[in-house]
Amino acid sequence: MPTERVYGIHTVRTVLARAPERVLRLYLQQGRTDQRAAQIEELAHLARRPIERVDASRLRGWVGEAAHQGVVAEIIPLPPVSEDQFYERLAAAAEPLVLALDGVQDPHNLGACLRTADACGVLAVLVPRDRAATLNATARKVAAGAAETTPVVTVTNLSRSLRTIKEAGLWIVGTDAEATQRAQDVDLTGGRCLVMGAEGAGLRDLTRRNCDWLVSLPTLGAVESLNVSVATGMLLYEALRQRAPAAPGQRLARQP
Amino acid sequence: MPTERVYGIHTVRTVLARAPERVLRLYLQQGRTDQRAAQIEELAHLARRPIERVDASRLRGWVGEAAHQGVVAEIIPLPPVSEDQFYERLAAAAEPLVLALDGVQDPHNLGACLRTADACGVLAVLVPRDRAATLNATARKVAAGAAETTPVVTVTNLSRSLRTIKEAGLWIVGTDAEATQRAQDVDLTGGRCLVMGAEGAGLRDLTRRNCDWLVSLPTLGAVESLNVSVATGMLLYEALRQRAPAAPGQRLARQP
Repeated sequence: MPTERVYGIHTVRTVLARAPERVLRLYLQQGRTDQRAAQIEELAHLARRPIERVDASRLRGWVGEAAHQGVVAEIIPLPPVSEDQFYERLAAAAEPLVLALDGVQDPHNLGACLRTADACGVLAVLVPRDRAATLNATARKVAAGAAETTPVVTVTNLSRSLRTIKEAGLWIVGTDAEATQRAQDVDLTGGRCLVMGAEGAGLRDLTRRNCDWLVSLPTLGAVESLNVSVATGMLLYEALRQRAPAAPGQRLARQP
Repeated sequence: MPTERVYGIHTVRTVLARAPERVLRLYLQQGRTDQRAAQIEELAHLARRPIERVDASRLRGWVGEAAHQGVVAEIIPLPPVSEDQFYERLAAAAEPLVLALDGVQDPHNLGACLRTADACGVLAVLVPRDRAATLNATARKVAAGAAETTPVVTVTNLSRSLRTIKEAGLWIVGTDAEATQRAQDVDLTGGRCLVMGAEGAGLRDLTRRNCDWLVSLPTLGAVESLNVSVATGMLLYEALRQRAPAAPGQRLARQP
């Protein structure tokens, strides 16, 4: 059975809290006795997971220069969700939000998008198999546990996948710096697949042609474009804002 | 005269395009002949800046393991904006947006917040002098040029600064995961100072007490919090959405 090592307080705590049966062994750095490490140790105790104290050089040997924060877990990876399984879940979901990343190159950006997608209740994140960042240890760490809860679905042909998603009743919304419509001008309340372009390059032409709407995000400044994970956060924010029930009335008074 | 080295295609191009007089010398890696490097070389030629071809090991010696993309520039740093100068600019600005980061620790996050702030037209980014990330080369690189256009103002006492900003007529809006008001429930159209808490820790109590409103951002998922730069992007997005003129009418038809 293939296993993998995940690291970092946030990621390890998420796996221990949500899927302790997948944790084969917890490794804590010798001498770490702070509250956050103690909390993780307690979670592992409660779930009857083996705990081992190891020295820092051993953790370093596993994760390299990455910030492991004294915590590494050997886990059974989340089984990958195939494209077909994804379509089954899509058919069963009410007004789902899906995120597609059209060739994001940097594992940090993939991890950051995944973390935001998880926080915003996205059903799955679609990434092309070729010429795109994969869900490696760096991406998992930046995702801060989200890789253990929101599936990343690898697809062979993103354009074909978008057409299948469209046939399932979702509308496809791509981001484009040149678009004249803004995110707030289109209806994001139903089933929607949001598509973000690669860093710098934006959407590929084939992807663009599969979009029902192209929308732009605010850029007033000198820098040419937003980071893709920040742009993803803005578009998901807008979708959630539109989907949220209205407030009982604006409270404009200053706090006492 | 102290100088500094900035690196990366985006950052170097921004300085060359906007403030070429600050570029003392451009260093290009030998063998780099791609279009983006050629464009930067052309900008430097036009501005009559000295250009030197150097080998990769020399660039590596300057910037370490960072991704310099074959481009380094020695520049005169943007003169720091003092707190007093910031208040002068604040008094002269119409309905300014200001961003304050209450103890953000990671230079990557500082750089990412700065890049987003610049893209959203923020007047300045305030950071406390102590226990916070400083604008080092890492932060400048992640900011992708924004450090050369949007000032980072270092303040000695953030609570006192917030009170002064309030006296200047701005309202202070802090983010808090526990807040019952959402960003879209409060009016962000006038002069506003948006305050983001540190990674994990959130706002300090003293900072919180200086906020006129506390607002939350969407979190539906398993991961406990949004990355601070993504949360900053969401809140700035909401401010710009509220400030933008209404669209002529929603166009809900699919594109032909």
